[in-house]
Amino acid sequence: MMQYRTLLGQELVAVTELMLSAINQLPAEIDSGIAKLIKSGGKKLRPALVILSSHLYDVSQQQTCYAAAAVEMLHTATLIHDDLIDNAELRRGQNTLNTRQSSAVTVLSGDMTFALAAKFAAFTRNPVLVHNFALTLETICKGELNQLLNGHNILPTKEAYYERIYEKTASLFSLCTKSGAILSGANSDEITRAGSIGYHIGLAFQIADDVLDFMGSEQQLGKPVGGDLLQGIITLPMLRYIDKNPDDPRLLTILENKANHQLIKQLIIDLRQSDAGDWAMAEAVRFIDMALVQLKTYSESPYRLAVEEIAEFAVKRRY
Amino acid sequence: MMQYRTLLGQELVAVTELMLSAINQLPAEIDSGIAKLIKSGGKKLRPALVILSSHLYDVSQQQTCYAAAAVEMLHTATLIHDDLIDNAELRRGQNTLNTRQSSAVTVLSGDMTFALAAKFAAFTRNPVLVHNFALTLETICKGELNQLLNGHNILPTKEAYYERIYEKTASLFSLCTKSGAILSGANSDEITRAGSIGYHIGLAFQIADDVLDFMGSEQQLGKPVGGDLLQGIITLPMLRYIDKNPDDPRLLTILENKANHQLIKQLIIDLRQSDAGDWAMAEAVRFIDMALVQLKTYSESPYRLAVEEIAEFAVKRRY
Repeated sequence: MMQYRTLLGQELVAVTELMLSAINQLPAEIDSGIAKLIKSGGKKLRPALVILSSHLYDVSQQQTCYAAAAVEMLHTATLIHDDLIDNAELRRGQNTLNTRQSSAVTVLSGDMTFALAAKFAAFTRNPVLVHNFALTLETICKGELNQLLNGHNILPTKEAYYERIYEKTASLFSLCTKSGAILSGANSDEITRAGSIGYHIGLAFQIADDVLDFMGSEQQLGKPVGGDLLQGIITLPMLRYIDKNPDDPRLLTILENKANHQLIKQLIIDLRQSDAGDWAMAEAVRFIDMALVQLKTYSESPYRLAVEEIAEFAVKRRY
Repeated sequence: MMQYRTLLGQELVAVTELMLSAINQLPAEIDSGIAKLIKSGGKKLRPALVILSSHLYDVSQQQTCYAAAAVEMLHTATLIHDDLIDNAELRRGQNTLNTRQSSAVTVLSGDMTFALAAKFAAFTRNPVLVHNFALTLETICKGELNQLLNGHNILPTKEAYYERIYEKTASLFSLCTKSGAILSGANSDEITRAGSIGYHIGLAFQIADDVLDFMGSEQQLGKPVGGDLLQGIITLPMLRYIDKNPDDPRLLTILENKANHQLIKQLIIDLRQSDAGDWAMAEAVRFIDMALVQLKTYSESPYRLAVEEIAEFAVKRRY
């Protein structure tokens, strides 16, 4: 059990209760589907970061709870639509909503979850938070659209990779850690400083995810090893491998979408034996170090220590 | 040309420009699809009502423009997902986004449009407007989910019918006419009073739509006459017909989802010859009369007259 779970136990329960109470007015089959998704989200990193950031500043518990529910509800909505788009069958060990409901119902359930997220954001009555919430939602949607339209069988630059994981993951983590500063009425420099912590944690978190996608076992991952590459998506470890092996002919085959399963599987084995995973993980650790340096500017408290714990967890987790 | 179009010409153009500038940063194929939808929305009743309501109170042009764009963007987002769910091929005489893009891209394009609507609402920096915006989005989603899950082959009570058209249509019209009061900082009684005008216009607008669905020609409608009934959805004219012909055995056949096309088409012919259309239209006129009475409490101005024009148009329009 991680320390932040003990520290924030009751506050995290309150956020979950708030979310569940909002969805239990929906038709039963939708309620139960979304409720399963909410309850199965074990680590609750995003709402935890919202609550911790509120403790680093001076924010009422009620506003904090609304902001945390807004962030987690937004994350839940993106999962519902992502799983539909990817035809995913499992999420957090549960059958996805799209396996149990029609596409139409799944689309509308995701929309409803977006609506509830917007409602919780509005409940804070803080225009700056609402503004940042809307911009983050826009960033996430933009990232998903770009990924879907232009993200397959293309060799991204490192900058394009970082832009993509910012849109996909770090933008929301940044919203989490800036929410305390926003709700306390801090100035924009202070808000940027606080958001930067989540930004770096989010980048590291996503890189670690992308490394695990290659380095984990099929059992750990609950899906095939190298799933991104199998879909034609090139992430940081692969970018490193290409840097070191620019003439590997298999790369072109993949970019031309002509690679068969066997070729990709062999490439994954070669990548696992290269330094690509370690190198990418070192990049992630570099981002976490930046977050930790920024955190040191806050006075020491159990809350600061808990954010540090989450930051370190982001690059240590092995599912 | 209706008067409100002349009166609000430049302001309506500014709203459209604002919406188009927000989407032109999207990938070209999405931009052009959403842009077509925005440009083809001829009557622009919703943004017009937002602007008119701002003139009835005292609101800055910039805030008004953001609120109008938020409302119209929200309406556009619901159309994108509705057309996907209904497999609709035409909307406002244009091919729908779902006929030109994959389901995945269409889902995300709708999400992006919701995000932009939320951003415009946030740009007003008015917590009460944002709150009302989020609640309206929730109401619309709730209505669509209920309709999809429980709205087919069921005989609704008149109350259930009115609840459905409130969720589907009148809630957003109500947001339009209350936005001026909200942005001017009016108290909640005043906001409710202003919203009630749009509420009644919206109910009438939807009833007229439901009447036209039976009474129009296939050419006028651009889709089969009685399309709702063909889908098993029972609206106000049919409720009137059933009141007058409670023993018509075809009703049970429809509710048991056993009706063939021929049976439904004959029922539609009988309904057209009954008083159901006129009776339902009289109900719509009754709601418009309520809106007109409420409008008389505002001092006379070109803006009040333009709202009256829109109200009267709602029950006169014949496509």
